[in-house]
Amino acid sequence: MEIPRGLRTYIYDQSARKRWVEERLLKVFFRWGFQEIVTPAFEYLDTFSEGGNGVSTDRVFKFTERGTGKLLALRPDITPQIARTAATLLKDSPKPLRLCYCGNVFRSADPGSGEGQELYQGGIELIGLDSPEADAETIAIAVECMKELGLDGFKVAIGHMEFIKGILSDARLNEGLQEEIKLKIQKKDASGLDDVLSRCPIKNEKKDGIRKILNLFGGKEVIDKAREIADNPVSLRAIDNLRKVYQMLTVYGVDDSVLIDLGEVRGFGYYTGLIFEGFIKGLGSEICGGGRYDNLLERYGAKIPATGFAVDINRIIDVLEKEKKGKSDFMIDYIVIDFRDDKKIAQEISHRLRERGYKVARDIIKRELLDSLKYAENMNIENAIIMGTGDIKEGEAVIRKISTGVEKKLRIEDL
Amino acid sequence: MEIPRGLRTYIYDQSARKRWVEERLLKVFFRWGFQEIVTPAFEYLDTFSEGGNGVSTDRVFKFTERGTGKLLALRPDITPQIARTAATLLKDSPKPLRLCYCGNVFRSADPGSGEGQELYQGGIELIGLDSPEADAETIAIAVECMKELGLDGFKVAIGHMEFIKGILSDARLNEGLQEEIKLKIQKKDASGLDDVLSRCPIKNEKKDGIRKILNLFGGKEVIDKAREIADNPVSLRAIDNLRKVYQMLTVYGVDDSVLIDLGEVRGFGYYTGLIFEGFIKGLGSEICGGGRYDNLLERYGAKIPATGFAVDINRIIDVLEKEKKGKSDFMIDYIVIDFRDDKKIAQEISHRLRERGYKVARDIIKRELLDSLKYAENMNIENAIIMGTGDIKEGEAVIRKISTGVEKKLRIEDL
Repeated sequence: MEIPRGLRTYIYDQSARKRWVEERLLKVFFRWGFQEIVTPAFEYLDTFSEGGNGVSTDRVFKFTERGTGKLLALRPDITPQIARTAATLLKDSPKPLRLCYCGNVFRSADPGSGEGQELYQGGIELIGLDSPEADAETIAIAVECMKELGLDGFKVAIGHMEFIKGILSDARLNEGLQEEIKLKIQKKDASGLDDVLSRCPIKNEKKDGIRKILNLFGGKEVIDKAREIADNPVSLRAIDNLRKVYQMLTVYGVDDSVLIDLGEVRGFGYYTGLIFEGFIKGLGSEICGGGRYDNLLERYGAKIPATGFAVDINRIIDVLEKEKKGKSDFMIDYIVIDFRDDKKIAQEISHRLRERGYKVARDIIKRELLDSLKYAENMNIENAIIMGTGDIKEGEAVIRKISTGVEKKLRIEDL
Repeated sequence: MEIPRGLRTYIYDQSARKRWVEERLLKVFFRWGFQEIVTPAFEYLDTFSEGGNGVSTDRVFKFTERGTGKLLALRPDITPQIARTAATLLKDSPKPLRLCYCGNVFRSADPGSGEGQELYQGGIELIGLDSPEADAETIAIAVECMKELGLDGFKVAIGHMEFIKGILSDARLNEGLQEEIKLKIQKKDASGLDDVLSRCPIKNEKKDGIRKILNLFGGKEVIDKAREIADNPVSLRAIDNLRKVYQMLTVYGVDDSVLIDLGEVRGFGYYTGLIFEGFIKGLGSEICGGGRYDNLLERYGAKIPATGFAVDINRIIDVLEKEKKGKSDFMIDYIVIDFRDDKKIAQEISHRLRERGYKVARDIIKRELLDSLKYAENMNIENAIIMGTGDIKEGEAVIRKISTGVEKKLRIEDL
């Protein structure tokens, strides 16, 4: 039986790795004083379209509500749901709110695209502050998550939505040209950018300024270079904001994981200020990303600034799988094999070991010892406890380590 | 902004309680040697309709797949997905498989029904064995789950699909009458049952036998009473099977939590043998349920017997909420409030405490101390660490317990 493309079933080491990643992410979030929120897997489509979450509406799975015919949508993104909750249910709660989550999101993908249709994400939202402190805290947590997951060579690239926006709107270019320019800059496509600029009715000086954005990538020094290009109050404020956040990141001691990339423009429609993406060595696509979204909550009825980020759990699982790292202990400690008809002792031993925290399966099928041992090997079981066969006397048991075959005889009461 | 009926957002103590329940369930499942499986939130509708899972098809949320137009369905039940995986991906794995899960299922509900449309379930599937040992293990785990959750007065009512089936098919009644009779018996509706029986073309002796099923509810003695009524090989085998399972439950020491209820017929279409439901004092509806489904895997291509059960996490959360029990520690240990401009020390202290496992929020907003303390009280924060204000000297901090207001001054290096 076939299952739809872009969906995965996780089992054994895969589910163990997924759980390991999620537990570690939540541990970091909790440590920073964030509290969990669990939102429904679907809502009215309005929640997401009004949120302008940048996942185009035709990638949202839609269906109708029984009795009303209203359009429901599988969530393509959890941030709009938390924004909705913060702007309604938690509107009058003191701020800031520190909320975190782990869950799945859904994005319809074309056949052959190879894209996942169900993605797992963990993330935080820091709601109620528009200060650089809040942006810095968010980035510091992202860096700590990657350290906690043991991902080496992790870098965060920081950009700012307002920097380019200021330069382009100062040039009084129409929306279409602005979007074309942004796309070329994001793709670091110099000749493509020249092409677009040749069609722009602006001074050569201004064109030079726009071309220089392509080089605004690197360390702290990029902030000063950007300051020189900024020829309008919006871009200047953006650079000032970026500088303050960077300073705070040195207080957090994470500045060595941080790059500046002012050509970066995140796709999601709701970002308004500082944005960032996280990368690791050898993986082209980002494994986390986020930023400031000061206008999103207003769409749900309360003008409250906010920032946050989400981690792409699927990609992290893939990386850890390749490096054979990071999975919770999914091995079963013991299988209890008792050949006698009376299962009381087998059950008592299993119970006693479980009480002490061990994972114990009982071999409740009649078969040869060899078959049971082969089963144990296949099913990730570490040791067998064998009773009631061969030269194992009443009151005795043999513990066999499956991987080595080493056996040890002992009295049952000593187990 | 409105959200659809029958959906919940969990926050603060609610999400903490949900997490607490799920962690405890998985702990029990793992302890018994079960391993986690994570299945996709939706699949082709076929997986569920072929599974005959008893959730009527019009309660399944359906939508179409991009590019193919095929019907997709939000899973109304996780068991068919695991059965599918076991019959395909894990077909050649040695048996038994011990698989467990925690996840959400979706069931479209009528307006005004008050029913949830997204339900959380945790459960196990023990696949590959048709022996009473497997049924007994499943029930023993259900009992242990309820103990682990601290639910008092928990009882499991055990029934058997084949017992009534044998009696009714022996009576050669048509399908319609059989269904009517089953429904009346399930509802323990004696006069309704009389009504249906008056329309049945069978001997009075047989009618008396069917009426007696209503009384087949109680302790171990019910097994003997049922033995007397069983007038056909199918029912006799069912009783024999039930007796063996019951005997094993005494080995597990859980027989005092077990009742026999031979009038019980679970709604789900795929059950074939021993079935059970779990109840707690003061709650009318069951909080867990399951049983044997020996024909389900065949629908996905492999004839393999299986048994399992699922826990209704939403109902358990409601019960624990009412009793003010069972939630993971969601309180934040400290809020660090530093009135000085240089945040280095505040950040260092926060970092140090987080390293030691504490949950620490920093107060990164400029406001009066009183406002910060009010915030802490509202946001489930236990202690405030205050620096740089009033008579608190350089190098000193005050720790204030929010609930009592008791303060203690100490040197920052001793924190």
